[in-house]
Order: sequence, then structure tokens, then C-alpha cells
Amino acid sequence: MSKAISNTIKGPTEGVGEFVLIESVFKAGAEAMAKKNPENTPALGIGDDCALLKPKEGELIAITSDMLVSGRHFFADADPYCLGKKSLAVNLSDLAAMGANPLGFTLSLALPSMDDIWIQTFARGLFEEANQFNCPLIGGDTCAGPLTISITALGSVPRQQSIQRSGAQVNNDIWVSGTIGDARLALAHARNEWSLNLSATHLKMINQRLHEPMPRVGLGIALRGIASAGIDISDGLLGDLKHILKASHLHAEVWIDSLPISNVLHEQEAQIRRQCAAAGGDDYELCFTADQKHRLHIQQIANDLGITLTRIGQLVESKEDAQSITLLDHDGKLLGAELTNTLLQSFDHFK
Amino acid sequence: MSKAISNTIKGPTEGVGEFVLIESVFKAGAEAMAKKNPENTPALGIGDDCALLKPKEGELIAITSDMLVSGRHFFADADPYCLGKKSLAVNLSDLAAMGANPLGFTLSLALPSMDDIWIQTFARGLFEEANQFNCPLIGGDTCAGPLTISITALGSVPRQQSIQRSGAQVNNDIWVSGTIGDARLALAHARNEWSLNLSATHLKMINQRLHEPMPRVGLGIALRGIASAGIDISDGLLGDLKHILKASHLHAEVWIDSLPISNVLHEQEAQIRRQCAAAGGDDYELCFTADQKHRLHIQQIANDLGITLTRIGQLVESKEDAQSITLLDHDGKLLGAELTNTLLQSFDHFK
Repeated sequence: MSKAISNTIKGPTEGVGEFVLIESVFKAGAEAMAKKNPENTPALGIGDDCALLKPKEGELIAITSDMLVSGRHFFADADPYCLGKKSLAVNLSDLAAMGANPLGFTLSLALPSMDDIWIQTFARGLFEEANQFNCPLIGGDTCAGPLTISITALGSVPRQQSIQRSGAQVNNDIWVSGTIGDARLALAHARNEWSLNLSATHLKMINQRLHEPMPRVGLGIALRGIASAGIDISDGLLGDLKHILKASHLHAEVWIDSLPISNVLHEQEAQIRRQCAAAGGDDYELCFTADQKHRLHIQQIANDLGITLTRIGQLVESKEDAQSITLLDHDGKLLGAELTNTLLQSFDHFK
Repeated sequence: MSKAISNTIKGPTEGVGEFVLIESVFKAGAEAMAKKNPENTPALGIGDDCALLKPKEGELIAITSDMLVSGRHFFADADPYCLGKKSLAVNLSDLAAMGANPLGFTLSLALPSMDDIWIQTFARGLFEEANQFNCPLIGGDTCAGPLTISITALGSVPRQQSIQRSGAQVNNDIWVSGTIGDARLALAHARNEWSLNLSATHLKMINQRLHEPMPRVGLGIALRGIASAGIDISDGLLGDLKHILKASHLHAEVWIDSLPISNVLHEQEAQIRRQCAAAGGDDYELCFTADQKHRLHIQQIANDLGITLTRIGQLVESKEDAQSITLLDHDGKLLGAELTNTLLQSFDHFK
């Protein structure tokens, strides 16, 4: 008797909310976008049992899903505009890491109550991001429940050109886009974790990095055929790099003081600087590997896109099965064991 | 300060759970399935930033997302085995309604605590369903949070052969697969809604309809080129049929006493019988429309698949914009206004 499952028998309040949501906010947003970009509308969008996409010949479909839960991934009173943007951005970042071009996304949304302003503001952020990256909303589901945002994004990438974690080779350079560590610094500030000295301007800058990350979609596409492996930096550089090392069976040497950081992070003390950059997370920059012969080409891509691309180390043979990372300081000296462990362990929260 | 968003900085407990989940249960399930069905593994499965699917030439990709929330779509102590099966089944049912062949699915799962037995039992149900319909797990996300299951399923269907809601024509027959109403009867029993007389055997039968619905994947594929429109019955026959009417701009006549029901439902009083069948929900049968010339062919499909297919009415011109349903009793007489309203309103909870 207690095991009944039903996704149909809803109370009237739920029904009204669901209706308002799907019909008036999200469908309207999707339709406005279709008008703007008629060439990128799906074969069939919102309003049937499934959406339909028409893949181009010779292309693979890339699929990624991310779920954001209130109180875990964001505070309950998070700005719904930023939340809408970021919910899609983190998925677009995964597409970027594969070299995929966004095709569309589905949104499953559980909402504790029908707050019209919240929904409209969330949708505004969501569709701004969707429009910017030409990635239409093609379907989804809404229901009452603890605030949860679940997005699945789809993209396309020509066969043989997808950027996978397993493709890295010995002696490849390791590159990082943009700057990293600011999002972690902003989180530390919000949490009062460390004693930080930040001007209002600097605080605004790092908060934007945390709340409105910029997925590197154009860079991912430009790196097709150039990057041997890639990943987006969501859990911290070293932790994410380790995924490449594991998949490619290699070891890495990383120049800890060459990590690209902003002026704001540069002004913090060395330990905070290193920890935010090496193991911060929420950066949504790309970490990728490439043959040394591509250095000039990669600098050209950086110039074309106006994105800084920085070499931060190289890949070496892995002894036995220990795919790990050696950290070198600005003099090329091995970092002390204690400091290395601190930086390596700070992301290694799975163990 | 209160707007921090982060999907990376997790406590150690969360990390351990996520790791155990992804690595040992779901990845193992996906790998076991890949061994069994090597021909249906994705181009790239779990373990990179995205999964990759390789579409066949001339095929469309169908995408559907459903979210199930504890306390809303199922009771918190629901049997995790059934929950695993049903979570995927409701998505496969959407693929079936489009005539699509399952290709794979992503699972985003928020769990309140790391209960190994629960996870393993949930995964067992999930992979049984996945194996039965040859639909591999290709990716997803897990985190701590209120129990929420969000699945996106992908399928393929040849161009021009997808079954959409908008394709119905005047004079088309309306068909329903299997029997409907038992799931609603089981829910009524679980909720003590009505005074029901049910034997233990009958209760078991209807509970199975509620907890372990059978998506009509094979039927959906067989109906390609035959069905002019289709939908899966999740919110109740009349409510779901209305979606076809709205998309196709038609009116329907439905023979209320011709709805296919089980022996169990047949034994209930007329009002319960009609309400469960017409507006119950959670049936996951297909309701589809087809030209009258296909009647013999459809009966042949029913015989081949061992599924009952029943004609329940027909489509007629819609006067003005009122796409609605006329209910006729077994003598072909219009049902009384009061009774009609009760049956039509019971699903119309969006208004």
C-alpha cells in the first residue's frame, strides 16, 4: 500500500503551476529564440512526447547531463538569473570540452512553489545563455518539489574530431584557457573561509566568475584536430587533469607557479593563490593537451578568439599504474611533499 | 554573499557517495550490459565530459526527459527495484509514442543518503529495464539531495516516419493498446480513496500495472507509417487524447464503454470503471490514430506482437477552435452532461 508510484495524479495547484510554467514562460522563450535563429530550430521542439533532432551526416551526437540541487550546488536564495545562466553554462562547458557544437537542451525543473518572478528571472538568465550559444530549449519536465535543476545538453561533433580524455600522448603540452581560481576565491569570501583583502571592484569581478561562468564553446570547436585530450575544469585543475591522466595512462609535470591567474588572485598570499588555482573548481575553463608542434597554431587560436591560452606543464611516461602529478615551482624545483599533498588532496575528496 | 553557486566544493561524505555510486554500481551495470549487447554500445559511454552517439544516416534523434520526485511522483519508501524500472519505463514510453528505437539514456540522481542496498536495488530494476529494451546507460550525474530521479532517453526514428501528435486526420480511427485504468485503481486502493472489493490476486495484478508499467516500444516501431498520430497514456486517456486533438485541430467521438479494461476493473462499479479507464493515468499504453484503411494491418500487428489493440472512437471535424471530446455510451447515445463533465474534468487539472 505504501509503494504507490504515480507521476500523473496531481493536485490542482501543481497543475496550474506546471501549466503556467511550460506554456507561458519556457515555451514562449523557446519560440522567441526560434524566431531569432530559425536555422537552428530542432526538427521538432517542445510539445510532443519527444523532441526530434536531425543530425548532419558524419557527425556524432554529444550528450551531457548535470543536476543542480538547492542547498548543495547553490544557496536557496541564489539569484535566479545567474542560476538560469549557470545551469546551462555548466552543460555547455561539457560540450566545449568534447569540441561539440550545441544543438539543444532539455530542462527538468522541480520547484517548491510557483513564484512567478523567480521563474521569469530564471528563464531570462537561461534563455540569455541559450541565445548566446545558439542552443535551443527542446523539451523537459516541470513539477513541484525541492528546487532541483536537471539539464541535458546535446551537441554535434564530426567523427574523428571529438576531444576525449583518453587521447593524450607522452611529451604533449598541457594547456589551460583563461584564468583559474577566482570562483574558488569568491566562494571562500561568501563562506568567510579565509581572511581576504578584496576591494568592491575585485569582489564583483570574482563573483562574476563564480556566478556567471563563460563556457568555452568556441575554443572547444577551434581545438578539433589540435587537442589530443581535453576536459573542462569544474572540480579543480589538478583533479580534472587527473581524469585525463587516468584515461590516457600518463603522468604529468605541472609548473604550479605558471598557472594563469587574475590580478585579483595574484594579490592574495601564495598559499591561497596556489590552492585556488590548482584545486579551486567552478572555473569552467578548458584544460587540454596537444602535441608540441601545435604551439604556434594554438597561440593563433588564442589570438583569434581573444582568449589567453597558457602552457602549464607536460605529460611524461607513467611509472607502473600511478597516474599522478608532480608539481614544480618557478625554479623548476619539486614542491615540498607537504605542500604537494595539500594541493593534491584538496581535490581528492573521493578517496 | 548569499548568492554563491558551486557544484564542486563538496564535503567528504558526498564525495565518497558519488564515487561509490558512479564507479561501482552504475558503471558496472553499464559495462555488464555492453558485454551482453556489444552491437548497441554508444560510440563513447560513461567516463568523459559527454557521451557520444553515432546516428545512422537518414535517422532523426528523439529526446525525452522525465523527472520523478519523492513525495510527489512516488512515496519515499517506494520499492527501489520498481522505482528503477519505472523511472526508465516512463521515458521509453515517450520514445514508443514517437515510433523511436531506444539508443541510450542519462540518469541524474539526487539521493538523501548513501544507502548501498537502496542504490543496488534501484540499479537492478533500472538495468533490467535497460536490458529488456536494449537501452544502455550512457552518462549522468549523482549528488546528495532530496530523492529525485531525472532521466533523459534518446532514440532513433527514420525521417518521415516519426509519429507526432499533429498528424491526425478527419475520419481516422482512434486506437488504444492493451488495457487501461488498472494503475489508477491500484492508486485508489493504496490511498483508500474508494471502497473497493479486490482479491489478493487481483490486487497484485493491478499493483504490477502501477509499479511496473510496460512501455510499448515494439508497438511504436511497428506503427511507423501506419499511425497518423500517437501519444502515450500517462495523464489519463481523455486528457492525453486532447493533446492530439489540439495539435491536429480535430474533435473526437469516444465510445466510453468500448475502452479496453481488465477483468479486475470490469468487476468494479460502472462509475469507477469509466473514471479509471477514461481519466486514470499511469497506463503507459499508446493511444494512436490511423486511417480506416489500415484496420486489417493494425489487427495483424496486434496478433504479431500479442498485444490487444482496440478501436475506441473516431476523429471528426472540429467546429471553430473547440477541440474537444464527445462521449457516447454502448448504445451510441451521448453521455449525460454531468457525467461527461466529471470524466472530462477529472483530467483537466491544468485549468
